[in-house]
Amino acid sequence: VGFYLRSEKEQQEAIEHIDEVQNEIDRLNEQASEEILKVEQKYNKLRQPFFQKRSELIAKIPNFWVTTFVNHPQVSALLGEEDEEALHYLSRVEVTEFEDIKSGYRIDFYFDENPYFENKVLSKEFHLNESGDPSSKSTEIKWKSGKDLTKRSSQTQNKAGRKRQHEEPESFFTWFTDHADAGADELGEVIKDDIWPNPLQYYLVPDMEDEEGEGEEDEEDEEGLEDIDEEGDEDGEEDEEDDGEDGEDDEGEDD
Amino acid sequence: VGFYLRSEKEQQEAIEHIDEVQNEIDRLNEQASEEILKVEQKYNKLRQPFFQKRSELIAKIPNFWVTTFVNHPQVSALLGEEDEEALHYLSRVEVTEFEDIKSGYRIDFYFDENPYFENKVLSKEFHLNESGDPSSKSTEIKWKSGKDLTKRSSQTQNKAGRKRQHEEPESFFTWFTDHADAGADELGEVIKDDIWPNPLQYYLVPDMEDEEGEGEEDEEDEEGLEDIDEEGDEDGEEDEEDDGEDGEDDEGEDD
Repeated sequence: VGFYLRSEKEQQEAIEHIDEVQNEIDRLNEQASEEILKVEQKYNKLRQPFFQKRSELIAKIPNFWVTTFVNHPQVSALLGEEDEEALHYLSRVEVTEFEDIKSGYRIDFYFDENPYFENKVLSKEFHLNESGDPSSKSTEIKWKSGKDLTKRSSQTQNKAGRKRQHEEPESFFTWFTDHADAGADELGEVIKDDIWPNPLQYYLVPDMEDEEGEGEEDEEDEEGLEDIDEEGDEDGEEDEEDDGEDGEDDEGEDD
Repeated sequence: VGFYLRSEKEQQEAIEHIDEVQNEIDRLNEQASEEILKVEQKYNKLRQPFFQKRSELIAKIPNFWVTTFVNHPQVSALLGEEDEEALHYLSRVEVTEFEDIKSGYRIDFYFDENPYFENKVLSKEFHLNESGDPSSKSTEIKWKSGKDLTKRSSQTQNKAGRKRQHEEPESFFTWFTDHADAGADELGEVIKDDIWPNPLQYYLVPDMEDEEGEGEEDEEDEEGLEDIDEEGDEDGEEDEEDDGEDGEDDEGEDD
């Protein structure tokens, strides 16, 4: 079988030689990673003013983010009815990758004054420590009295007589207290890698997956907002000014 | 809820403006990808002579590749008993990423003259076409008479009285005819991304996962080869010259 070195010693020398060559390969891999990181950092800087501009424009469009989330199949699955109402107050989302990128990122959610919690900003950030172990931490949400959406059961939400009968997911906001999957946080990665690069595509195109065959030419179709007008208006024309008329929440709103 | 633009028209204009900004972001993303690709191509070229040198050194070590595969937990799970014997003739493995990297890669397996098949090289290559659809193709294996390992049942392999009693996997060599998962070919990606970057680590360190607590200080430990001496010699010292003594295969070897 070929021209094998026969003695243990010669094999050992070959292995040591392979090890040296491998060290050269590893060194080149490291250099490549560093150069790629520099390219990514350069373009992160170049993209920054455009992200900034985009955020300012988005802030002018009512319900941009809640619509975007509702239209995104994976995020939508995490939203309870009241989550959606709370997310109507979400005015700005920012994703920041840390300077050395591989070490983590942060997502900031900016909220307008709202009946659910006191915070103006909710953040969650993800880190890799030096040995590569992932961790995450978040803003503690200061819920207004009786408004903690993470403590509502499906029953509480359903008894108000909603049209949806399917099982309610846990609240979207439990994400801020869940640090079990810091290394592969599904929602964090969907926002960072799928929504943030181009949120407009989700804002404009609703998730059609479970609406197939329901007649896409129907009356509610014109604005591409299929699922967000929960406030009882069927024609979806007044959503532009839905600041605060969430009349379903008759439990301690005015504390 | 903030300073929203109220009219449909103003919102439409904001959306169009977002779209323009998004196009700038997309353009920067493309530039970034191109620059990163160039860095990767540059380092692929720089690494090439070291991979070449490494291959030459590896070819001098008997059973390097079969040992490496047996020591790798995922690859090992794909190996039947006779696969391992055939892989003793595997002298060289080469992974080639295509010039535009994202479009695919090829793995070449160079075999010495062997009792199983006529081919000197077995290759499998993976492509993405322009619309991003994956496909794969392989060398057709010219099995010697009665030696087609993909057509042996577990029974055939077991009746020779092997020590292993666990269920035999399908043959490793079925991989060359299986093109169902071209987009996420597990073995292909393990070889390309995990083994090829540093095969020596697997050659030297056997998979301990299912050997825990069996006394790692035992007699066979010195060479770190736990699982490859299938030929009946318990002391594992004669493996260097095991060219052809696969006496278990008593079906038409000499055609």
